[in-house]
Amino acid sequence: MTDFAPALLTDHYELTMVSAALKDGTADRRCVFEIFARRLPTGRRYGVVAGTGRLAEMIRDFRFGAEEIAHLRRARVVDDETADWLAAYRFTGDIDGYAEGELFFPGSPILTVSGSFAECVVLETLALSVLNHDCAVAAAAARMVTAARGRAIIEMGSRRTHESAAVAAARAAYLAGFASTSNLAAGARYGIPTGGTAAHAFTLLHDDESAAFASQVAALGKDTTLLVDTYDIAQGIRNAIAVAGPELRAVRIDSGDLSILAQQSRELLDSLGATETKIIVSGDMDEYAIATLAAEPVDMYGAGTAVVTGSGAPTAGLVYKLVEVDGRPVVKRSENKATVGGRKTAIRRHKPTGTATEECVVSQGVPDHRPNDRLLQHAYVVGGEVVDLPTLQESRDHLRQCLISIPWEGLKLSAGDPAIPVTVIPAA
Amino acid sequence: MTDFAPALLTDHYELTMVSAALKDGTADRRCVFEIFARRLPTGRRYGVVAGTGRLAEMIRDFRFGAEEIAHLRRARVVDDETADWLAAYRFTGDIDGYAEGELFFPGSPILTVSGSFAECVVLETLALSVLNHDCAVAAAAARMVTAARGRAIIEMGSRRTHESAAVAAARAAYLAGFASTSNLAAGARYGIPTGGTAAHAFTLLHDDESAAFASQVAALGKDTTLLVDTYDIAQGIRNAIAVAGPELRAVRIDSGDLSILAQQSRELLDSLGATETKIIVSGDMDEYAIATLAAEPVDMYGAGTAVVTGSGAPTAGLVYKLVEVDGRPVVKRSENKATVGGRKTAIRRHKPTGTATEECVVSQGVPDHRPNDRLLQHAYVVGGEVVDLPTLQESRDHLRQCLISIPWEGLKLSAGDPAIPVTVIPAA
Repeated sequence: MTDFAPALLTDHYELTMVSAALKDGTADRRCVFEIFARRLPTGRRYGVVAGTGRLAEMIRDFRFGAEEIAHLRRARVVDDETADWLAAYRFTGDIDGYAEGELFFPGSPILTVSGSFAECVVLETLALSVLNHDCAVAAAAARMVTAARGRAIIEMGSRRTHESAAVAAARAAYLAGFASTSNLAAGARYGIPTGGTAAHAFTLLHDDESAAFASQVAALGKDTTLLVDTYDIAQGIRNAIAVAGPELRAVRIDSGDLSILAQQSRELLDSLGATETKIIVSGDMDEYAIATLAAEPVDMYGAGTAVVTGSGAPTAGLVYKLVEVDGRPVVKRSENKATVGGRKTAIRRHKPTGTATEECVVSQGVPDHRPNDRLLQHAYVVGGEVVDLPTLQESRDHLRQCLISIPWEGLKLSAGDPAIPVTVIPAA
Repeated sequence: MTDFAPALLTDHYELTMVSAALKDGTADRRCVFEIFARRLPTGRRYGVVAGTGRLAEMIRDFRFGAEEIAHLRRARVVDDETADWLAAYRFTGDIDGYAEGELFFPGSPILTVSGSFAECVVLETLALSVLNHDCAVAAAAARMVTAARGRAIIEMGSRRTHESAAVAAARAAYLAGFASTSNLAAGARYGIPTGGTAAHAFTLLHDDESAAFASQVAALGKDTTLLVDTYDIAQGIRNAIAVAGPELRAVRIDSGDLSILAQQSRELLDSLGATETKIIVSGDMDEYAIATLAAEPVDMYGAGTAVVTGSGAPTAGLVYKLVEVDGRPVVKRSENKATVGGRKTAIRRHKPTGTATEECVVSQGVPDHRPNDRLLQHAYVVGGEVVDLPTLQESRDHLRQCLISIPWEGLKLSAGDPAIPVTVIPAA
């Protein structure tokens, strides 16, 4: 079992806060919590919203069952009154936020959760876990997609991350523009195209490389990818074409100096008449490695470790902060973490050409409307009911449009400032 | 739902390999796969085995159900023959490996999976996902525990990682010597002590800080931790002691220059007569931040992001390689990834004092026995049946002993070579 009831994917202190708030009468105060990033990972120019659709489904199923409550009582996490409250729990408030596939910047209020204190506070850990993970993967994946300049990227990093995180990572990478994933659960759950043919083990299993290739072609046809770097790559390519003929769809190279190997492999394939056979490269691919191969005869990339671990930024740095109590803005004041209290409304401003110029975030008010503004927040949950959400494909298309809209410097891989500034205007 | 059938936590290519191997008759060849790391993360001196117990349970439940098979056929991942094979699948082979809590180094064969090619190859992704994640967290956590020099560390990073990964991370951190976790699912599933009291939101919810503290103390008693840095820390401490009296168990500081704040807070608490009140610090704690605070009057640390993301090394770099087919060693030869084929047997040698000196790994043979050797591999699964495994507490104790046994340089936080060398001896 890899399963946990969503309601236990929660930090202990959320329930002790509920317990104390039930006793002192503050549990029902109307509260607004916001999720935002104080900063982007070092040098990153944008963040990508991902995971909110996944989160909305989990909030719909967020219940404390009899078994969970029995455990919490046994472990003395909660008292009787709190246990009763948990047993009756269902989220009845509202959740609004940026669409999946939307870009975000420091200060963007990407998710707003409103309701009673108690019903909102217990969602903190789950909401942050889902968004911190999925946004981290999506941002890394989006940079790789930009670097690939239209060539397809296959996500194959499941083995490098927690087994359930792998499924969410495949979803986030696909949202960010990856072409497919190796992960079968992601295919089953989210309808993402899956792909894969063979590992080095398959070649080693057989008496020789040609026998392995012949077996694979017999089973899968010539529209397959042969992995040619188990022994000697040039010989591997010759064996591949000898077995499959020049109609072979692709060869994959998983090791070595991929720039040189791609050139040599293309020349060799062409000399063998396999001019349409594609070259797929994999092995330690990140956005920089992909960019380095831009001029080489590579047709497709396989990316693993870097994408599922956020390419150096494995978590998105999002926080869940109480910003409003009974209509009154609240804010933690100590030590350079000053944020603006109050529920925020966010718009993104654009030039008439469609290029984004800034994000305007107003506390307890609405930004003045100008032409080419775009409202950034949408309903996810209304009165506890999850609304119809965009499909993964729609979110994918949305991100593509968003990336077109930011100033071109924003797409550079090099370290720099956020692509557009965010202006946060406190309540009057 | 956060659940996936373990059998779908698999890469597409594993099933295409099974399909081709079933057709060509190689599916039943007796194979040995090994999991090992070619190298440790940059500068690390040891790895920590974690997750194997979790993996063994998932292998016990590793079945392709009717729903999964229907999906795989619909998506044309498998043909009829393969679908039938999957429907009957259960692992019937053997799994041996290093104990949880054991140290490992480049080349250590930490898990050995043997059986038919087909039954072993489908476990590749799941085995690597579990071990790459859990080992990464455990290694980071072990370094933090060393840095903390006996002071307790609370794991509170759930919000910074995927929601299910958070539960596994709590387990790995506890195995590595953390005192407790914030994650309730980890408490329920693994019996790890959970803890937590209040967030800044709880203070902000109330009309003032003293009201929040009074509420918390009313609900939880004086044996609680008050978070004192929402507004002004010195005033927060005064309010805390005014409300709870000098019997207050602890105050927590989550922001600012923790060295100076710890000193000032200790002096202030002492001046208020709260000489027994503990100081807990949290906020961006990693092994280096913890080490920096060694001389300060800190009683306990809270660690989050760094531990759940492996403190710069979010994946352990473990690979799953076919090393033996029908008794014959096999090895991939291309491009600097040369490894030694054949099933390995591993022992660790020690001085008479108990200090480890080297690891000796022999392919298709047994290391010569010397006094103070320790055999490193144990049975996890025999003929498809999971054997009784050590408890999490036993694994925790084992790691503590292992860390005592390595040369003292091996415990330094600074970058360096692996604590002991691994000698791999090929088959004669």
